[in-house]
Amino acid sequence: MTGDRWSALAERLGTDLYLDLQPDPDAPTRGRSAQLRSRLADELRSAIADGRLAPGTRLPPYRSLAADLGLARGTVSSVYSELIAEGWLTARQGAGTTVAAGTTVATGFGAPGSAGASFTTVVSAPRVAHDFSLGQPNTSQFPRTAWIRSMRRAISSADDSAFGPTLPNGSERLRVALAGYLARARGVRAHPDQIVLTTSVLSALELLGRSLFRESVAAEAYGLPFFRDAFTQYGAVVSPIAVDHDGADVTALTDLTAKPQAVLLTPSHQSPIGVSLAPHRRAVVAEWARATDTFLIEDDYDGELRYDREPVGAMQALAPDHIIYTGSVSKSLSPSVRIGWLVLPPALVSTVMWAKGMREPDASIVDQLALADMIETGSYDKHIRAVDSFIDAAGGR
Amino acid sequence: MTGDRWSALAERLGTDLYLDLQPDPDAPTRGRSAQLRSRLADELRSAIADGRLAPGTRLPPYRSLAADLGLARGTVSSVYSELIAEGWLTARQGAGTTVAAGTTVATGFGAPGSAGASFTTVVSAPRVAHDFSLGQPNTSQFPRTAWIRSMRRAISSADDSAFGPTLPNGSERLRVALAGYLARARGVRAHPDQIVLTTSVLSALELLGRSLFRESVAAEAYGLPFFRDAFTQYGAVVSPIAVDHDGADVTALTDLTAKPQAVLLTPSHQSPIGVSLAPHRRAVVAEWARATDTFLIEDDYDGELRYDREPVGAMQALAPDHIIYTGSVSKSLSPSVRIGWLVLPPALVSTVMWAKGMREPDASIVDQLALADMIETGSYDKHIRAVDSFIDAAGGR
Repeated sequence: MTGDRWSALAERLGTDLYLDLQPDPDAPTRGRSAQLRSRLADELRSAIADGRLAPGTRLPPYRSLAADLGLARGTVSSVYSELIAEGWLTARQGAGTTVAAGTTVATGFGAPGSAGASFTTVVSAPRVAHDFSLGQPNTSQFPRTAWIRSMRRAISSADDSAFGPTLPNGSERLRVALAGYLARARGVRAHPDQIVLTTSVLSALELLGRSLFRESVAAEAYGLPFFRDAFTQYGAVVSPIAVDHDGADVTALTDLTAKPQAVLLTPSHQSPIGVSLAPHRRAVVAEWARATDTFLIEDDYDGELRYDREPVGAMQALAPDHIIYTGSVSKSLSPSVRIGWLVLPPALVSTVMWAKGMREPDASIVDQLALADMIETGSYDKHIRAVDSFIDAAGGR
Repeated sequence: MTGDRWSALAERLGTDLYLDLQPDPDAPTRGRSAQLRSRLADELRSAIADGRLAPGTRLPPYRSLAADLGLARGTVSSVYSELIAEGWLTARQGAGTTVAAGTTVATGFGAPGSAGASFTTVVSAPRVAHDFSLGQPNTSQFPRTAWIRSMRRAISSADDSAFGPTLPNGSERLRVALAGYLARARGVRAHPDQIVLTTSVLSALELLGRSLFRESVAAEAYGLPFFRDAFTQYGAVVSPIAVDHDGADVTALTDLTAKPQAVLLTPSHQSPIGVSLAPHRRAVVAEWARATDTFLIEDDYDGELRYDREPVGAMQALAPDHIIYTGSVSKSLSPSVRIGWLVLPPALVSTVMWAKGMREPDASIVDQLALADMIETGSYDKHIRAVDSFIDAAGGR
């Protein structure tokens, strides 16, 4: 597909849309169609996030887009379904597929937009069968050269002030880079000021347990025990949610007599069972969180690594005001680089920052600068693709 | 002074001693005699620590050593006094100055040696007048080039396993390098397995507050409030110790009706008052700690930076089984590099490691590897000297 085709498409859509779907010349030819599918999804997300595709814009039927792009109909259809599940698009009977309201990522902090109403009609995308187990970091995959190069660039170009004490939310440069990355790669709606950097997902959960949820939390019955401990150590009672082949049985939440303050979920890849939360359940639990004003904590465990499954975006976009998103580089880079993050609903940011204290107490800022450089220069994405290829070659793990 | 003179000295001492006191050719000529003094102290500490000067070895009278080395008598005398205050040497009426018992740094963990008895007769060295205030990190001094170089070397040469999860005590490579550095530069007796790496002195104190001292701690009345909070947050009652021109009034500890579990002191540089703990008080409190089986926590705040004062070694060597030593790179390098350490009496190591959990939860291991390289290659020492020169040039601050 050429830029011309996309220009034609953009003209039909009435927007100045240009999506670059050229395949990466360095990429192996094997898996080329999966690459194109992934690029289409990424480019559509970006176009929606930065306003090139405005809320309410009607997308062409997937059949005509597929013909236009020379892709299989099923490919475009599954991309649409994925973006619907992630909340970027809305499908209504008779109205076709349109860009959902409230999808443009806020450019000013404090203007998060109440995206709630636009996600009430979310269709169920077909569930993909998965076959993977709990992954362990592959230590031979640490991108030594890229890390050194990024560290050099980041340290050389940093202002002197970078080497002084840092505010509790961490490096601004990394928060800016990460907001862009998470929007692009995971569909997360994050303004940099909604991000609080931590040293790991565990430290992020402990911070939430300490500052916000000291009474009651619900969590997947088969979740990681030390994640539950992050809350119980500060006094919270943690109730189990059953897990089946569609992920956590969130429908049971509506039956609870006592509503928990927060619900901890791993929609991308439940550990250790390995299922991901089915799209219809994502919609149900996001709607329930909004209706009952409850917070969901989305641990995007393994979210960046795709193994052999279809990519599934983060759930956060379904209810940005009620979903706290957390992740880290412990699998994507290495557990020896201690960088994690929270993307918080704006209303929670000051409470969590206050709980951290005057300064960032633990996280290495020089590492944060190096990671920021990796993201800014595309080196991080390239590494993620390399790890995915490695996993593919190893039989999908 | 030449190597030959030192060989002659070594022959008289009956040991194979070689101390390199050649001045650094790159160093400014100003302050050359202070450099030689400092080198003499460092070389004697090293020779004692690694066993070249065995416990019980009698040193030549300071007058003859001064003549031999072409140094002023007062210089050698003050080096002897300093090493006596630090516990490396013992002075007894009629017996001259000898290497104290238990000074050789244990090469096998679990064999710390009970150095106690040899420190009972500690002479009071003349107190040095100080003039410095609470220092702030100078962010323009971050050694960018050295950091990048060390990061490149450390990452390139690391085994793959360095990028996997790490034990709670942190990088072994840094613990080995740091044990050598602290012995050499601060007179600390540390086997690498007595070191637990943390992200800062504050996190080190919190770890102690959480795992060991939940009931009662005494601390300097004018200490940093968030250091006291490190203990009160886990339930300990913190009692104040008065501070005067000789530092904390530790003689008052003997009058306490209820003995605290631990006493937090900043012997090197009390913040914010700026005094250091007088040698006779160091001896008194170390003796009291041993006699009452109480733990002292020595926060070696600013210990590496000398400003315009005479260097004073760490107190830890006076009672290695009863003094917990803590420090960090937040002043020497930057608060953006989050690396701190605890040197623990061997009996406490497993409790503190257990409290940290399965793995190092917060500290960046790649940064730890870079710091290890800086120490191994002498780059860290060079940086410390550069910072000292900067401070000197700025009027002693």
